[in-house]
Amino acid sequence: MNGREISNPLDLKQIQVTDAFWHREQELVRTQVLPYQWDALNDRVEGAAPSYCMRNFKVAGRMMREKRDKGAAYVAPSYTFRGFEALPEDPANPDEDKFYGFVFQDTDFSKWIEAVGYSLLQHPDPELEKTADEAIDIVCAAQLENGYLDTYYIINGMDRAFTNLRDHHELYCLGHLVEGAVAYYQATGKDKLLRAAERFADYCCQVFGPEPGQCKGYPGHEIAEMALVRLFEEDNQERYLNLAKFFLDRRGTEPFYFEQEEQERAAHDGQPYKKTTNNAYHQAHLPVREQSEAVGHAVRAMYLYSGMADVARLCGDEAMEAACDRLWDNVTREKMYVTGGVGATHMGEAFSFNYDLPNDTAYSETCAAIGLVFWARRMLQLKPRGKYGDVMELALYNTVLAGMALDGKSFFYVNPLDVAPEACHKDGRKGHVKTVRQKWFGCACCPPNIARLVSSVAAYAYTESADTLWFHLYMGSVLTKEVWAGDDSSREKKTLDIKVESQLPWEGKVKVLLRGDRTPCKLAFRVPGWSGGMKVSYRCCGRAGEAAVTGEGLAMGTDFADQTDRAGEQTALSQAAVSYRDGYLYIDGVWQDGDEVDLEMEMPVRILEADPRVREDMGKVAIARGPIVYCLEERDNGKDLHLCRVDLQTLRPSDIRTETTKELGHPMTVLQVPGKRLLPEESGELYRQARPAREEDVTLRMVPYYAWNNRGEGEMSVWVRR
Amino acid sequence: MNGREISNPLDLKQIQVTDAFWHREQELVRTQVLPYQWDALNDRVEGAAPSYCMRNFKVAGRMMREKRDKGAAYVAPSYTFRGFEALPEDPANPDEDKFYGFVFQDTDFSKWIEAVGYSLLQHPDPELEKTADEAIDIVCAAQLENGYLDTYYIINGMDRAFTNLRDHHELYCLGHLVEGAVAYYQATGKDKLLRAAERFADYCCQVFGPEPGQCKGYPGHEIAEMALVRLFEEDNQERYLNLAKFFLDRRGTEPFYFEQEEQERAAHDGQPYKKTTNNAYHQAHLPVREQSEAVGHAVRAMYLYSGMADVARLCGDEAMEAACDRLWDNVTREKMYVTGGVGATHMGEAFSFNYDLPNDTAYSETCAAIGLVFWARRMLQLKPRGKYGDVMELALYNTVLAGMALDGKSFFYVNPLDVAPEACHKDGRKGHVKTVRQKWFGCACCPPNIARLVSSVAAYAYTESADTLWFHLYMGSVLTKEVWAGDDSSREKKTLDIKVESQLPWEGKVKVLLRGDRTPCKLAFRVPGWSGGMKVSYRCCGRAGEAAVTGEGLAMGTDFADQTDRAGEQTALSQAAVSYRDGYLYIDGVWQDGDEVDLEMEMPVRILEADPRVREDMGKVAIARGPIVYCLEERDNGKDLHLCRVDLQTLRPSDIRTETTKELGHPMTVLQVPGKRLLPEESGELYRQARPAREEDVTLRMVPYYAWNNRGEGEMSVWVRR
Repeated sequence: MNGREISNPLDLKQIQVTDAFWHREQELVRTQVLPYQWDALNDRVEGAAPSYCMRNFKVAGRMMREKRDKGAAYVAPSYTFRGFEALPEDPANPDEDKFYGFVFQDTDFSKWIEAVGYSLLQHPDPELEKTADEAIDIVCAAQLENGYLDTYYIINGMDRAFTNLRDHHELYCLGHLVEGAVAYYQATGKDKLLRAAERFADYCCQVFGPEPGQCKGYPGHEIAEMALVRLFEEDNQERYLNLAKFFLDRRGTEPFYFEQEEQERAAHDGQPYKKTTNNAYHQAHLPVREQSEAVGHAVRAMYLYSGMADVARLCGDEAMEAACDRLWDNVTREKMYVTGGVGATHMGEAFSFNYDLPNDTAYSETCAAIGLVFWARRMLQLKPRGKYGDVMELALYNTVLAGMALDGKSFFYVNPLDVAPEACHKDGRKGHVKTVRQKWFGCACCPPNIARLVSSVAAYAYTESADTLWFHLYMGSVLTKEVWAGDDSSREKKTLDIKVESQLPWEGKVKVLLRGDRTPCKLAFRVPGWSGGMKVSYRCCGRAGEAAVTGEGLAMGTDFADQTDRAGEQTALSQAAVSYRDGYLYIDGVWQDGDEVDLEMEMPVRILEADPRVREDMGKVAIARGPIVYCLEERDNGKDLHLCRVDLQTLRPSDIRTETTKELGHPMTVLQVPGKRLLPEESGELYRQARPAREEDVTLRMVPYYAWNNRGEGEMSVWVRR
Repeated sequence: MNGREISNPLDLKQIQVTDAFWHREQELVRTQVLPYQWDALNDRVEGAAPSYCMRNFKVAGRMMREKRDKGAAYVAPSYTFRGFEALPEDPANPDEDKFYGFVFQDTDFSKWIEAVGYSLLQHPDPELEKTADEAIDIVCAAQLENGYLDTYYIINGMDRAFTNLRDHHELYCLGHLVEGAVAYYQATGKDKLLRAAERFADYCCQVFGPEPGQCKGYPGHEIAEMALVRLFEEDNQERYLNLAKFFLDRRGTEPFYFEQEEQERAAHDGQPYKKTTNNAYHQAHLPVREQSEAVGHAVRAMYLYSGMADVARLCGDEAMEAACDRLWDNVTREKMYVTGGVGATHMGEAFSFNYDLPNDTAYSETCAAIGLVFWARRMLQLKPRGKYGDVMELALYNTVLAGMALDGKSFFYVNPLDVAPEACHKDGRKGHVKTVRQKWFGCACCPPNIARLVSSVAAYAYTESADTLWFHLYMGSVLTKEVWAGDDSSREKKTLDIKVESQLPWEGKVKVLLRGDRTPCKLAFRVPGWSGGMKVSYRCCGRAGEAAVTGEGLAMGTDFADQTDRAGEQTALSQAAVSYRDGYLYIDGVWQDGDEVDLEMEMPVRILEADPRVREDMGKVAIARGPIVYCLEERDNGKDLHLCRVDLQTLRPSDIRTETTKELGHPMTVLQVPGKRLLPEESGELYRQARPAREEDVTLRMVPYYAWNNRGEGEMSVWVRR
């Protein structure tokens, strides 16, 4: 085996998610989020600020028609800056020729169509597809002849297009359009939007590049990098990969493009130049291959690193890969919440400095956790390592899902780890922390981002190479893996049909049922970092075997007495070779109908502490079980959660009882933790002689973090005093 | 004894401060702060932003001369709004006819002249007095014929004077002018500035008042209330007291004045009215007699409550007194740091909600602590209670003094209780927290406020009534108390000369040496809340006695066996009656030369905890001894102070050793506290299985909070994990 084990997500057409947990989430997206979102982007949501998204496409479409109709007589609009968010003076009567909304408002459509695409794969819906096709017609009608497609400039005046890459998000719009178009094409086979996206991308390939006369800029808000890679992977046109690589190569090189651009804008406007650019905010302070610390806007950073991992994989760019490795270590060892959230400060929605992870003023944007999932999957594609799967799973099951209410009708943008509602209401320093989920946002990034991730979650659960299928997440699903059997002289395409039954995230049991025609395939199962170990028993070509991964390494045979770390050792009992490497258990076998793999992961309650450099978590513990991180809520434990603690000198993880409840709608495991609660003593003094704490024994009830705040406003805390 | 025991500060001419601790502070003010401040307000400080203060007075003075010279031909400027802070376009060439600086920049002079007055009393200085007289000439030359004196409007156009009481600080300027003028008059007997201040006050008495046609407004930034009371107390003109009372009576009544005013401004400017007024920020949300919670800008609140206490005292206004009582309890039981700082949030430099006292993002402005000292003294004047003295002393010895470096050359505006410099530099949320003291501030309130308080500190140490002298603070001093002896038929003025020798704040021993001619006087000694108790031995008319105050009450006699709480009991041994009431030990005696009172207060190290509703201090203790609160500094204890803790299960206050050091310039007591320090363990994991803490025994060195940050930048923490 060489050092490279590059893999790709499976074609989503080859997977159906049947998992109880994830099917429910996907149904929420399908039945709640997508219809709501469609109404929102058509300004039909009572009480919500209009999006103006589809309206802008229609305005631009009318302009395009007028242009064609008038021919040479058509007078194009001359650019007027309308602000980062343009709102009508009289909201009841928006001017019919004007652009409204945020500069990136077009992406509302792109994110919606992407989620629609994924959803149609899981759940065909002709009516939804018809709505989508009509929307695509409206969008495509707005496109310029040269392929440009961003209604902000089309409507406001193209003469200043691409003169503010730092703030005006045109390349961000390109990226989302490409993502949406590819997804919709892959789902439906309809290529109208894909062709439009390619034309916009082609236009950008002309405008941007290393040749003289081409613009040397790059996106202010990254996403185009990974989107262009995706387009390349769809249609194999190298120019898209090259443009992605060009954006990465230029980023952060001197002279800094955003500063040059700002100078040019000042000169154009006849204004004195005053530097307002913060390159680090855009991850443009250093060439990307030299970056080692995650800085600036967290979502942008995650999208950038995702694109970097893509290019490292496709181009075998070792310096890029090394930068990804350094950044990964920095994020996951110094800048990530225990819930998988990233971006600790609301100031710039950004990464704070190492180990600065405040719980009550956390930003931890839902979209940043989603970005971390994107990046983790791409790191897994580059090299399968359990640590990437662990973080992907952590972010997904905790911060991403916490972003959406259990009824799919309201959303968190910010995901704090400690909430006292009074503080959020009365203290401006916590003004960004909402105490209840919101219906929708003017800047609607998080809800549609959840929608596109949840409806494509299978693309994160599995990746494949020619001969290997990796199980990164465990979810009930039915899927097909194609493999080429035989040697070079006679190769034959075979399929392995797989049915996965999973009890995750509540129990660690997974059954993998296989149907094949003596199909050779390596199955790679992630051994989660949260499990004490994993036992596997399997039947391969009818012969049974078993193995286990423990803290000691791999053990094989019936009684696991033969402790060994040797990779690829053939067991006596089966036709499969079992090995363990980098957090994955590999079973290299030849499979036939009736074969089966049973996994059993230990799922102990874990009492976690943070690195002591995290000042905020000093003297506290967090409690987790499997991939789920738990929290205290006022509803279960009364007010003043900070009075609660667990006594680590006496508490053993085994003292913590699990309880399955349907109280919050779907069955979930909650924890009963023996704890203590400080008894209030009114002394009338703010400061007094310290005395031994008078405490009562209590049972603390902890619910999954993703399920918090579904029973009204109240206090919440992930970290508990020890 | 009736319920009222109203008192007044002594005439500062009757006191000389000889105390080692306070004399040093006063000398810093005299030799460092006052000369620097004079240079600052004349724009002569290299590298500092110009104040423009004296320059503005000169500009206005030239305008007044021109007006007199031209007579009817003079054209007054028509008002132009110049911003809350007006700066010249070209700093090298300010326009010679314009006002520059903050709208309240005139107060730079007023605060300086006030401190100069106090300083001249302690240390005559003909040259400084000559400078001051010349400055007064410049200021008085700027005054309008009608008495108005605020250069912002005089220069920018009087047509809009008094149209923005909320923000434009004219009445704040009046207040500081009065305070400065009275102080300078009391010190020197020169009344030029006092007459100018009276003329401005007289003009305000015409403009503001209950009569039809008079303005019904009140100050946006309070201080005029207490200043007008002071003016009344100096010259006995009732109209000044009435104006103070009028401002208080109107404040917070509906319709809200600041909103009306804002509407009128909008109408005048032809702009649509948009409410921006936050009445609570100005303590104008409720009639003052109905207020119970300290809200809004903390300095303004302290100044308001000071004025309320003054008016309650002078007018016997019980509803006002009750409001002061409620606000006092709220501030000191729910909103005060253990250092005596108030105003927990930088957003609006304001009070946060009850028990919200963050240590690392604290605002705790120096001026707010000074305002708390002002208010506490006024509460003591209204009724002597030990709790007011305790808080006054706490704020003074800790937060106020922390505001100034030990060399008097740099200043803190914000007084955090927990500092990690990296966080302040890298985290915008802590951008207001400076890690080293600053030379001076554009908005120069704190340094001159320290100067005026420190140089008049004797006015806080003592108050008197006709027959009683209260010792609120203990400081070495020489003073004279005048009393009337005899009955109504034959009254005779006698003096009691008093010399106080004090070892505060380091030891609790105080000696009071008396010289009298059978002078009857009650001496009232505060028994500090921080002391376990106080012993007193005294010689009165040559006969000795002794008593003690303990937690049980008052004990008298040689062996203190006769435990009693009876007030006014005559002892067998002396001619003095000793009683204890509300935190004060009273010795009612007739004194003659050679009499003496010796106080001995216990000064144990105190280990304090906060009310558990203070979330930030949960699981932590603060350490204090006498009036001094201690802190850990990186210089003594290494980086990562949060790794340190004390073990309350084993630590006894008596284990904490005191050490006297001159390391920081003057002799001070520092503490050696047996503690523990978490040993760093590199696991490479941000979150890991919680394990028992591996700690080493260490001796934590704690220095007085007021002395922190005099040895370079570094971490600091008042609260220590327990």
